[in-house]
Amino acid sequence: MTKKKLNLKSAIQKQFRSQRQIGKAPGTITYMGNREDGTYAITVIDYSDNLFDFQTLTRVEDALAFKEQVNVTWFNVYGLSNEKEIDKLGNYFNINPLVLEDIVNTNQRPKIDEYDDYVFATLKMLYLNKDYEISTEHCAIILSEHNVLLFQEIELDVFEGVRDRIKNKFGRIRTRQADYLFFALIDAIIDQYFVVTENIAAKIDLLEEEVYNHPSQETAEKIQRLKKEVLSVRKWVVPVKDLVNRIIESEHPLVTKETKLFLRDALDHSIQINENIQLYRELITNLMEVYMTNMSNKMNEVMKVLTIIATIFIPLTFIAGIYGMNFKNMPELESEYGYFYVLGIMFLILIVMIIYFKRKRWF
Amino acid sequence: MTKKKLNLKSAIQKQFRSQRQIGKAPGTITYMGNREDGTYAITVIDYSDNLFDFQTLTRVEDALAFKEQVNVTWFNVYGLSNEKEIDKLGNYFNINPLVLEDIVNTNQRPKIDEYDDYVFATLKMLYLNKDYEISTEHCAIILSEHNVLLFQEIELDVFEGVRDRIKNKFGRIRTRQADYLFFALIDAIIDQYFVVTENIAAKIDLLEEEVYNHPSQETAEKIQRLKKEVLSVRKWVVPVKDLVNRIIESEHPLVTKETKLFLRDALDHSIQINENIQLYRELITNLMEVYMTNMSNKMNEVMKVLTIIATIFIPLTFIAGIYGMNFKNMPELESEYGYFYVLGIMFLILIVMIIYFKRKRWF
Amino acid sequence: MTKKKLNLKSAIQKQFRSQRQIGKAPGTITYMGNREDGTYAITVIDYSDNLFDFQTLTRVEDALAFKEQVNVTWFNVYGLSNEKEIDKLGNYFNINPLVLEDIVNTNQRPKIDEYDDYVFATLKMLYLNKDYEISTEHCAIILSEHNVLLFQEIELDVFEGVRDRIKNKFGRIRTRQADYLFFALIDAIIDQYFVVTENIAAKIDLLEEEVYNHPSQETAEKIQRLKKEVLSVRKWVVPVKDLVNRIIESEHPLVTKETKLFLRDALDHSIQINENIQLYRELITNLMEVYMTNMSNKMNEVMKVLTIIATIFIPLTFIAGIYGMNFKNMPELESEYGYFYVLGIMFLILIVMIIYFKRKRWF
Amino acid sequence: MTKKKLNLKSAIQKQFRSQRQIGKAPGTITYMGNREDGTYAITVIDYSDNLFDFQTLTRVEDALAFKEQVNVTWFNVYGLSNEKEIDKLGNYFNINPLVLEDIVNTNQRPKIDEYDDYVFATLKMLYLNKDYEISTEHCAIILSEHNVLLFQEIELDVFEGVRDRIKNKFGRIRTRQADYLFFALIDAIIDQYFVVTENIAAKIDLLEEEVYNHPSQETAEKIQRLKKEVLSVRKWVVPVKDLVNRIIESEHPLVTKETKLFLRDALDHSIQINENIQLYRELITNLMEVYMTNMSNKMNEVMKVLTIIATIFIPLTFIAGIYGMNFKNMPELESEYGYFYVLGIMFLILIVMIIYFKRKRWF
Amino acid sequence: MTKKKLNLKSAIQKQFRSQRQIGKAPGTITYMGNREDGTYAITVIDYSDNLFDFQTLTRVEDALAFKEQVNVTWFNVYGLSNEKEIDKLGNYFNINPLVLEDIVNTNQRPKIDEYDDYVFATLKMLYLNKDYEISTEHCAIILSEHNVLLFQEIELDVFEGVRDRIKNKFGRIRTRQADYLFFALIDAIIDQYFVVTENIAAKIDLLEEEVYNHPSQETAEKIQRLKKEVLSVRKWVVPVKDLVNRIIESEHPLVTKETKLFLRDALDHSIQINENIQLYRELITNLMEVYMTNMSNKMNEVMKVLTIIATIFIPLTFIAGIYGMNFKNMPELESEYGYFYVLGIMFLILIVMIIYFKRKRWF
Repeated sequence: MTKKKLNLKSAIQKQFRSQRQIGKAPGTITYMGNREDGTYAITVIDYSDNLFDFQTLTRVEDALAFKEQVNVTWFNVYGLSNEKEIDKLGNYFNINPLVLEDIVNTNQRPKIDEYDDYVFATLKMLYLNKDYEISTEHCAIILSEHNVLLFQEIELDVFEGVRDRIKNKFGRIRTRQADYLFFALIDAIIDQYFVVTENIAAKIDLLEEEVYNHPSQETAEKIQRLKKEVLSVRKWVVPVKDLVNRIIESEHPLVTKETKLFLRDALDHSIQINENIQLYRELITNLMEVYMTNMSNKMNEVMKVLTIIATIFIPLTFIAGIYGMNFKNMPELESEYGYFYVLGIMFLILIVMIIYFKRKRWF
Repeated sequence: MTKKKLNLKSAIQKQFRSQRQIGKAPGTITYMGNREDGTYAITVIDYSDNLFDFQTLTRVEDALAFKEQVNVTWFNVYGLSNEKEIDKLGNYFNINPLVLEDIVNTNQRPKIDEYDDYVFATLKMLYLNKDYEISTEHCAIILSEHNVLLFQEIELDVFEGVRDRIKNKFGRIRTRQADYLFFALIDAIIDQYFVVTENIAAKIDLLEEEVYNHPSQETAEKIQRLKKEVLSVRKWVVPVKDLVNRIIESEHPLVTKETKLFLRDALDHSIQINENIQLYRELITNLMEVYMTNMSNKMNEVMKVLTIIATIFIPLTFIAGIYGMNFKNMPELESEYGYFYVLGIMFLILIVMIIYFKRKRWF
Repeated sequence: MTKKKLNLKSAIQKQFRSQRQIGKAPGTITYMGNREDGTYAITVIDYSDNLFDFQTLTRVEDALAFKEQVNVTWFNVYGLSNEKEIDKLGNYFNINPLVLEDIVNTNQRPKIDEYDDYVFATLKMLYLNKDYEISTEHCAIILSEHNVLLFQEIELDVFEGVRDRIKNKFGRIRTRQADYLFFALIDAIIDQYFVVTENIAAKIDLLEEEVYNHPSQETAEKIQRLKKEVLSVRKWVVPVKDLVNRIIESEHPLVTKETKLFLRDALDHSIQINENIQLYRELITNLMEVYMTNMSNKMNEVMKVLTIIATIFIPLTFIAGIYGMNFKNMPELESEYGYFYVLGIMFLILIVMIIYFKRKRWF
Repeated sequence: MTKKKLNLKSAIQKQFRSQRQIGKAPGTITYMGNREDGTYAITVIDYSDNLFDFQTLTRVEDALAFKEQVNVTWFNVYGLSNEKEIDKLGNYFNINPLVLEDIVNTNQRPKIDEYDDYVFATLKMLYLNKDYEISTEHCAIILSEHNVLLFQEIELDVFEGVRDRIKNKFGRIRTRQADYLFFALIDAIIDQYFVVTENIAAKIDLLEEEVYNHPSQETAEKIQRLKKEVLSVRKWVVPVKDLVNRIIESEHPLVTKETKLFLRDALDHSIQINENIQLYRELITNLMEVYMTNMSNKMNEVMKVLTIIATIFIPLTFIAGIYGMNFKNMPELESEYGYFYVLGIMFLILIVMIIYFKRKRWF
Repeated sequence: MTKKKLNLKSAIQKQFRSQRQIGKAPGTITYMGNREDGTYAITVIDYSDNLFDFQTLTRVEDALAFKEQVNVTWFNVYGLSNEKEIDKLGNYFNINPLVLEDIVNTNQRPKIDEYDDYVFATLKMLYLNKDYEISTEHCAIILSEHNVLLFQEIELDVFEGVRDRIKNKFGRIRTRQADYLFFALIDAIIDQYFVVTENIAAKIDLLEEEVYNHPSQETAEKIQRLKKEVLSVRKWVVPVKDLVNRIIESEHPLVTKETKLFLRDALDHSIQINENIQLYRELITNLMEVYMTNMSNKMNEVMKVLTIIATIFIPLTFIAGIYGMNFKNMPELESEYGYFYVLGIMFLILIVMIIYFKRKRWF
């Protein structure tokens, strides 16, 4: 009993990271992740139609220099555990403490909040790590008049494409305002979801092949684990549809009608991802049913073999047992052909049994 | 372990066709299908009440000649893998790059988008191939003032009826504007869905007959595969209802009130298809339950046979075993009628057992 | 393989009746039912507060005579397979070809369409045939200013009550306009649904009694077939609620506020029917669960009997086997009371086993 | 076959009470219950702030005397089978025949209808009878300017509290108008639902105790019967929420803003009841799962016992069988310690088997 | 039978606490909890930007002194069973009796009601008790112009954080009005829900580990109990989302726009909690499936062992039985190497069987 409680207590405490926040005043900046070394880095990409500048900042204070320019400036903050520096940055950009709280809250569900001077969105980046496992990273984006602030824990490939397009003047990104960059970042994150859902689809295909051709006890566990994976992916992915939809329907002056056209495309993608995840859930349930049916069928087959063997040989053994008795007076035993008669009867019973099972279609 | 990863990797890569797009700028035209030979063909049907002209174009440029006429012109583009030519055509007709991207994206879910000068719809054609299997083809339709552009991968029979009606002046199609042709094409696609749902209904009937009369292990697999088929058909068919509904509720100047009357009919058909698919899902679930119950019943029967045989003969064999023992002093063995007494007792036990099983209704 | 395909092909073709329509122009009148003899009959009931006239028409043309009168005229058309005559009638009454198409489409789902001069409703009549089986018949009703056109395949008792009320001046029907007749017909059809749902309720009661008292393998099949029946009844009955609701909310000048009061009653009935069908589905699922649990319990019981018998007698038989061995030197065999000792030990084992099973509550 | 049909026919006919109405004109007053003796009684409570009068009426006509007074008058009609007297009463109070039809229709689902001069509500009273079983009674209430008409089949305790409060001037009922009495009656009925849901909760607790501690075959049947009970309670209780909500949102002049405040409370109760019933359904499903798991676990245990015994003794018996053969030349039999060697080997096999099962954690 | 009824009766009566209210007039203050000693205590925290005062009141009357001040005053009432004192307090603050009824109704579902002068919210506090079990406490909060009244049964740690923030001037609470305190209390309660959901997550993790590595019969019961726990937590937690949403959308003058910004954060938390609970339900269902599959797999394995042993040794035992018969004339017995031939044949059968089972992949 005591041991159980200890187990539970330690299991709870492992989870309690997310409770550091509890009881604190709303707007208190409390990092909730598990990369607590306090390191952080800021890179800045400053661009307009005919300008491109990339810098790494050594101090938060340097960010201010870029703030007021009319060029679009993309601030990229890596590392969220240094609450003090985040707070400082927040003050420079007049960010509401509630937003700062959400920026460092790595458990925050995807959402969008509009403020007078800026729009704040937070969502999860999903990607495949080196072992083809689904990983998740917290991400927060702020769109203000000329700036986009992007907060991440570590540097990922997700935004590499956007950076390339800015640098190499691909597409229309260099000619547009900050809201287009804001859209481009969200679009890049959503695009990455397809990698994850395709990964799930591939796993389903593999498992389907396994279920039909060489199911084992492990197969069921794999299916269930995949189901759990889909459930947790869904948790982060489903709210994104509403998020995008709310930007489109928003009347915030920072989001231009032109960018909304592109957002409609992102909305479409997020709907497709939701539909895919729904489909995968049903396919996995389907797969589990196939597995269970297979198993039941095998059980049936096993039972049939047992029953056929037992039903044939138990009565025959009984007959042999009869004539193995040691009674003094057993007339059959004395008969010259008794043994052969009995063998004949046994053979007859065998034939009858086999016919019976054939009729019942047991083989 | 390594092998598993390899399997997963190759399975993922097979799926990754749909990821060619990822990381590229929105509006980049990237073909996603698997017919990558770059061939394409354009046919043009130009008609008005008293004119009918059919041509095959050799160059994309020739399409321009038809563009500005007041006749209704139906451009039929076969082959989507030649991204460059699609782009050229798009430029001639002032199509937004986002639309061009969706035209060649064979994974695009059904949707409708309204632009100032044109309406863009994309949906899937479902049809039965030569082996009566459900096949799916990507299709995109653009309605502009006097033109309808239809993009397909290969030529299919689906639109044969529409072509006939134009050629032979059946119905009212020759007297109407381009929006009626637009409707007629969508209607033809939706009509074809009935062929597919009827095919599913036929398969359910066959499987039902199989489940009730001669179920085998294969039956369960067939049921599950049909369920998967229905799930993937649903994926393409369900959004079509919203698509049609949105055209009807649209206030786009290109869609006339008169054509909306007909669209109401198409809406009705797509609702009916959705209801059918919902019904089929439930029937298939039902069928699976019947199968499982049948199997359980058989298992029960098998177990009863085993139990009856074992319960009758194991005790009898034990009695025979008793008198097969070689003890020096076993008075019964010496008795003159001992053997017959024992046979009698065995017979009695048999009778009692049979009565017991009869009472329990085991036969 | 070939045989399978043939099976599928013929099964599909059986279903393809509903595809005669596919590929034809919208508004083409194509009969979809299976009573293709082309016969039809028209009866006319012409009435006002102080007039009642019943006639059988020999020619479609005769209908025109009644069309323009201010009396309420109820045209009853039996037989939908004669597409030409339906077309003629449609022309006389200025009915849109899309409506005519739906009138003869026996697969049409229940719906209501409002046109400038008339209201068109189509729904299914459900009734019990002579063998107490649920049957379904297609029905279409058109309400125009002074006329109600009712299209059926064959004559049924469903509208007998309405006819009686007109003839015998029961209730308020003779004093009201055509829209009240329109309502009365729909109400009669919905009323009939209660007969069908009560029939399902009765079948559930019978099956419940069977499941609890004398379940057999057949019982499961009956339950599943009933479930399928409920599913197909639901398909025709559920849309009727929306249909009635849409008439109530319609602002069509032909539907008076007074009649809407009565329609509210019909709406109430259709809600009740939907709730009943929902309840029946749950009761049937419940019943199936009871059946499965019963079966599992029986299986358990069978296994217990087998295990008890085998567990008691297999060890005893082994002991008997030991002393049935023919070794030269087996001291126990020589002992004078060896046999009785062994019998005693066997009896002891028997007692211990029985106590063990009692403790485990196996009997 | 014939017998089956007879069964079905009689089962259907038992149900057909509810079809007496079918085919009749809407607004025909047809009693649907099963207390058809035609007796009825009317009691009248007439009250204002400083007046309280209780009378039993001998004739329906006497009701008229109270109708026009400004005091609040509560007419209580017991017995609904005397269609003629109900009709008479309806005429005195100008009640629409459709309402009268619903008053005597004991199968009517809960609903509220507003008319110009009165509001009509019908719902079911649920209560526990003497055997603590859930019983249901039909109830109809009409609110007109100074009167409340309450129709019941028999006298129940449900409204005793309201009567007491009027008589003894408890609460604010004596100072309010008829709409407050109307609310008070509905509130009393909804309050009584809590008795029923608590009864279900108590049954679930008892069954849970039974499932965990001494499950039997009967337990499953009890669970299923309770589930059925919950389903039928739900049928009558769920629509009440909408009913109350519609009074609150109604703008009928008879329902004052002050009373709506109290109705909000009743709404709250009906929401809570709906939530409880939803919860109970899930708990019962949960319970059934526990039962099934328990049963499977027991089955597993039974199978393990059988397998252990059979797996140990069948091979040993085989060895004994070998040396029970009567071949002339069997060297082992002649060996002096052969018997003991064999016994030793058997013992060794036994040990190995036990270790094997221990490792597999079968005990 | 009688015993059963007694059981049911006593079980029902245990539940009937919640029925003390039934039949009483609405607005009657009836305590529904189980701490009926009638003790109560009131503490008062009076604060403004530069004032902090904490007092314990001896009499309800003393509360009045604080009522009219412009400082924010937080009244904390512990103990709800003294209906008379609650009533007195209610009168001092002009609280509607319906609200007072809900304050002491410990079964009241979470809701918010707006009145002209105040806003009333009631919800449940969830927390972990000393044994890490989920406990629930009733809580009611009234917001009036300068006062917040908080009613609880006992003192809990939940609001300790809020008290600290007021005392130590953390955050912005001291500079804000009563509505911010109102929000802060609700926020504190919702924050505490995370502790409970994390506790459930931890239990799921523990159970998952148990299911995969050392499942026992107890495991299934634990899973089911956890499911029940989640169901009852959900009951109290789900309505909170609507509650918060309704404050945000409310236009009550007491709730300022500034506080609504913070409420949006609380709304976000309650959405996240709802999503978590939904996820946990699915994970638990998933877990139960894993358990059942595991059990089925084990059963399969057990059956295979039994079948392999029986199928190998039953036929062999039969052969041994044959040659154990005592017929006079059995030629094989006389043969010199008969015994060895038979042993050889038996060995052959054994080999064949093993190959057969290998092929069927039974080991």
